[in-house]
Amino acid sequence: MRSVVKFGGSSVADIEKMKTIARYLRNRSISGEELVVVVSAMGKTTNALLSMAREAAQNPSKREMDMMLSTGEQVSIALLTMILEAEGQEAVSLTGYQAGILTEGLHTRNKIKDIDIGVIEKHLSQGKVVVVAGFQGYNREGEITTLGRGGSDTTAVALAAKLSCPCEIYTDVDGIYGVDPRIYPKARRLASITYEEMKEMAFLGAKVMEPRSVDIAHHYGVRLYVGSSSEGKPGTVIQEGENSVEERSITGVSVLENIMMVTIHPLKNVSENTAKIFSKLAKEEINVDMISQSPLPDGSVSVSFTASAEEEPVVRTLLTELLSSMEGVELSIRADILKLSVVGSGMRTQSGVAARLFELFSENAITFLQVTTSEISISYTLEKKYKDQAVQLIADAFHL
Amino acid sequence: MRSVVKFGGSSVADIEKMKTIARYLRNRSISGEELVVVVSAMGKTTNALLSMAREAAQNPSKREMDMMLSTGEQVSIALLTMILEAEGQEAVSLTGYQAGILTEGLHTRNKIKDIDIGVIEKHLSQGKVVVVAGFQGYNREGEITTLGRGGSDTTAVALAAKLSCPCEIYTDVDGIYGVDPRIYPKARRLASITYEEMKEMAFLGAKVMEPRSVDIAHHYGVRLYVGSSSEGKPGTVIQEGENSVEERSITGVSVLENIMMVTIHPLKNVSENTAKIFSKLAKEEINVDMISQSPLPDGSVSVSFTASAEEEPVVRTLLTELLSSMEGVELSIRADILKLSVVGSGMRTQSGVAARLFELFSENAITFLQVTTSEISISYTLEKKYKDQAVQLIADAFHL
Repeated sequence: MRSVVKFGGSSVADIEKMKTIARYLRNRSISGEELVVVVSAMGKTTNALLSMAREAAQNPSKREMDMMLSTGEQVSIALLTMILEAEGQEAVSLTGYQAGILTEGLHTRNKIKDIDIGVIEKHLSQGKVVVVAGFQGYNREGEITTLGRGGSDTTAVALAAKLSCPCEIYTDVDGIYGVDPRIYPKARRLASITYEEMKEMAFLGAKVMEPRSVDIAHHYGVRLYVGSSSEGKPGTVIQEGENSVEERSITGVSVLENIMMVTIHPLKNVSENTAKIFSKLAKEEINVDMISQSPLPDGSVSVSFTASAEEEPVVRTLLTELLSSMEGVELSIRADILKLSVVGSGMRTQSGVAARLFELFSENAITFLQVTTSEISISYTLEKKYKDQAVQLIADAFHL
Repeated sequence: MRSVVKFGGSSVADIEKMKTIARYLRNRSISGEELVVVVSAMGKTTNALLSMAREAAQNPSKREMDMMLSTGEQVSIALLTMILEAEGQEAVSLTGYQAGILTEGLHTRNKIKDIDIGVIEKHLSQGKVVVVAGFQGYNREGEITTLGRGGSDTTAVALAAKLSCPCEIYTDVDGIYGVDPRIYPKARRLASITYEEMKEMAFLGAKVMEPRSVDIAHHYGVRLYVGSSSEGKPGTVIQEGENSVEERSITGVSVLENIMMVTIHPLKNVSENTAKIFSKLAKEEINVDMISQSPLPDGSVSVSFTASAEEEPVVRTLLTELLSSMEGVELSIRADILKLSVVGSGMRTQSGVAARLFELFSENAITFLQVTTSEISISYTLEKKYKDQAVQLIADAFHL
């Protein structure tokens, strides 16, 4: 029996917490398990490094950021390994490079290209717990790289994929909830969820796992488990759909804040102009999310899309310049909105979810601005003020 | 024109100091120099890492210590490179591994085996300042290693040897002094000193440079310069003897404290027993320094040697056990002593130095316990209480 086990930053925040983890790992190893452990940087280490970098340079090169940030995980793996050895457990630490994690792409947001698991297999066969630095790898030029947000989850899942074993992610929360318990205290932890539902949830702001790592798990069929490292409570299993669809029509509601909605209208020569707009945005690497378009009586259209509110200055400059050549076209950007998504693989087989949602909004005088749908989700942009009311109405109506 | 330039821990203690260094390097690079910069960890970083390690485990494995300690230099090189880039100077940071520094030996005290300078040459040819992490390398197994005390000096000198260029070591002191200025305020900074004199000085407690790095410089004929990073004062050049012997008979006096003198007597079956004793000490890696032996009337001998006072418990246990089988042999260990050495390449060509020293001691009623000589030095063990008096007498007598 072999597992990849990942511990996040707050569960390795100090030496005491690492000692708890080490004893836990020791017990599992004694009972015959082969363990590969992935750890993040300790608690506030990354922030401390970032603030030093800011003091050094206004806009430090990303290669050097990777050089610096990767040290956080390197300290964690050395300490956890020392503690394991002090507990009588043979162990070895490996940086991303030593673990054979080859990456490609841009510094600070590399993607894993492949993993040469030879070194890990060798150490496992010698009975060692192998402690791998999350979030980092190396590229073909031999440079140190990092994987960007949620990178340690990605490391863990990719290792599990290559080592053909399940992956356990230990974090601050004790599992996946259908609704944010801070908004809806009656929310229940889900015992299981499909990869696709989890991906929709992740993309839509559930924040428990990065979508990339769920994608990898899905693609390679890695059984994922998400749970709390500090409590004995059962967490949530993420796996293939057949067994876990049950009778649920809706699995969860998620809310994405900190977004803006951009509307352009009236737009003529529709396909030519929308192409211009979205290719320009893509070129500047602006991540566009919901896109909706409505026809106007004169044959022109109104186009709206959402994006991260952080992109506001760039998008405004970009579009103002682009639209200056199109007569009479207006640009409006709203930041007082949020995106609310209702997710459930049950939607494929049960009708009426969309209808019930429209009824709910209408009965309670909640107006929405855009709506888009996928096979297993419906998303709305709403004014922020409706957030709690809308989430509670949906949670009650669908017994989440 | 190409140089290796090394900055110690206190000269990169904070970002402000690094900015000063970066501007200095930028100016030299603009004037056409090719620069390889070696830096240590920032000020207190290494101590902070060590204290975490101690909290993690009583006796952490040395492999994991290397994994952890190497991060200190990695942060320094990233920050200095960011700052250089912010100053408009193209630069690149390299860990010991990336710089091709292959090492061998025991973890935490590896020795440099070879350096593959291909990557450094490539970056230099692109006009970049190359910033290399001192104190670290990698071994044939691909593990991260460190070089032990003074390791960053060793990195710098070894790089200069391979790159066929001079090496500048910037440190807290503004050069090499013949006598410790804290003991003898009239002490003068030496404009130049030979490798051999420097090695004797280094071994004997001058503390400015580790003997290993001076050895490498000597072997490869690397011109060394030692000076202060903060002041414009000229430092000391260390180079081949011919040009710098001048008329000096004595170059300096150095004092080594924190040692103990071990005496064993009466010892019979001399060569058999001394062999036993010193091979036992060597096996336990006890570094023995001065050894002296005097015949006793009955054909037995009295043997004395010095070693670091830190080794006292080990040496006492070891010898007590060994001597228990030799009847009537006594062991005495004195920690109230110091070693005083007088160094000068002039000794080779000028007689009378030893005689003058014996006279000085005799006139001033300073008794010494042991004496050993090399071609360019004479060393004594003395009681600690004579330290300042002896140093001042010698400095005055030889106009140091």
